[in-house]
Amino acid sequence: MELLKERIQRDGKIKEGNVLKVDSFLNHQMDVRLFHEIGKEFKRRFEGEKINKILTIEASGIGIACVAAEVFGVPVVFAKKTQTKNIAGDVYTTKVESFTHGRVYDIIVAKEFLGEGDSVLIIDDFLANGKALEGLSRLVKLSGAELAGAGVVIEKGFQTGGDLIRSRGIHLESLAIVESMDEKTGEIVFREQS
Amino acid sequence: MELLKERIQRDGKIKEGNVLKVDSFLNHQMDVRLFHEIGKEFKRRFEGEKINKILTIEASGIGIACVAAEVFGVPVVFAKKTQTKNIAGDVYTTKVESFTHGRVYDIIVAKEFLGEGDSVLIIDDFLANGKALEGLSRLVKLSGAELAGAGVVIEKGFQTGGDLIRSRGIHLESLAIVESMDEKTGEIVFREQS
Repeated sequence: MELLKERIQRDGKIKEGNVLKVDSFLNHQMDVRLFHEIGKEFKRRFEGEKINKILTIEASGIGIACVAAEVFGVPVVFAKKTQTKNIAGDVYTTKVESFTHGRVYDIIVAKEFLGEGDSVLIIDDFLANGKALEGLSRLVKLSGAELAGAGVVIEKGFQTGGDLIRSRGIHLESLAIVESMDEKTGEIVFREQS
Repeated sequence: MELLKERIQRDGKIKEGNVLKVDSFLNHQMDVRLFHEIGKEFKRRFEGEKINKILTIEASGIGIACVAAEVFGVPVVFAKKTQTKNIAGDVYTTKVESFTHGRVYDIIVAKEFLGEGDSVLIIDDFLANGKALEGLSRLVKLSGAELAGAGVVIEKGFQTGGDLIRSRGIHLESLAIVESMDEKTGEIVFREQS
């Protein structure tokens, strides 16, 4: 998606440890006009898929998912992150390992909002090691719903998440895949996508 | 807002301890078509106000804020909740007391996304004791931005938050004000609004 790549080039900041900061338009301040274009692009890439629900995870996925959901004309469900020990029986839950925060947390979705008959598109802002996306797809499977695919805004192509998700046979669409970044020169190279 | 009140009557569930569960359409599963109508209603109620940014707080405020922001044609900034001890100097921060979770947390906004020249509308899903809204308005003040007003979807009129925020001279618009709820009969009474 050219508009997105241009925006990453212009406003993204490369930080130590292969961190790409895009918080001026994606995940702290949020450019909802760009989100609308992102939603349209997801709609185009998943054309023909029967999708009746979008699933995302708090917090920064919610804005993109909601604006995209308007384009799809479907509701959003967001998985909640929790460290609560005792989780009631009326939720689907799975564990996700966070490298950023160095801990394991539970993600949960109420059973009444996901289940058989649902055809789900997962949407998230970032794909790096793929743990969050894997967790979300486990929730979909647990619920008996069908996973139509996963759409992410930025994939870090030099990390293993994209390969992992694709190897599971999941239809993954990443709107921009960063192949490499150079903290010193500020150069960002994107993977060519057909 | 009649559409919203009807939805609360139909799908809201009253739980012990004056809890109003609206997670089938507002804050777990999210009906983005309703959010669009909510955005239009906020736009109508803040007509004439110069608003160039919407501020909300993670997680459940983000979806409503983003869909409303499309109606306003402005970006969203969301305050992050954190328990991190050491916060870098490039953020505005204030403490917020959570009654639900029985703890105090910090909320932060990066300085680069809020400041002089901004005219800010705060949006959140719920107003109960008003602590979150107070915290957000403190962040606006700290930043030197102007607070155009605050829009909430559901105000619990029997708690003190609404009076607190109005007594501070803040232009508060609540789309539905719950005056009383009865767990046994399921009856919800709304405040008459002109």
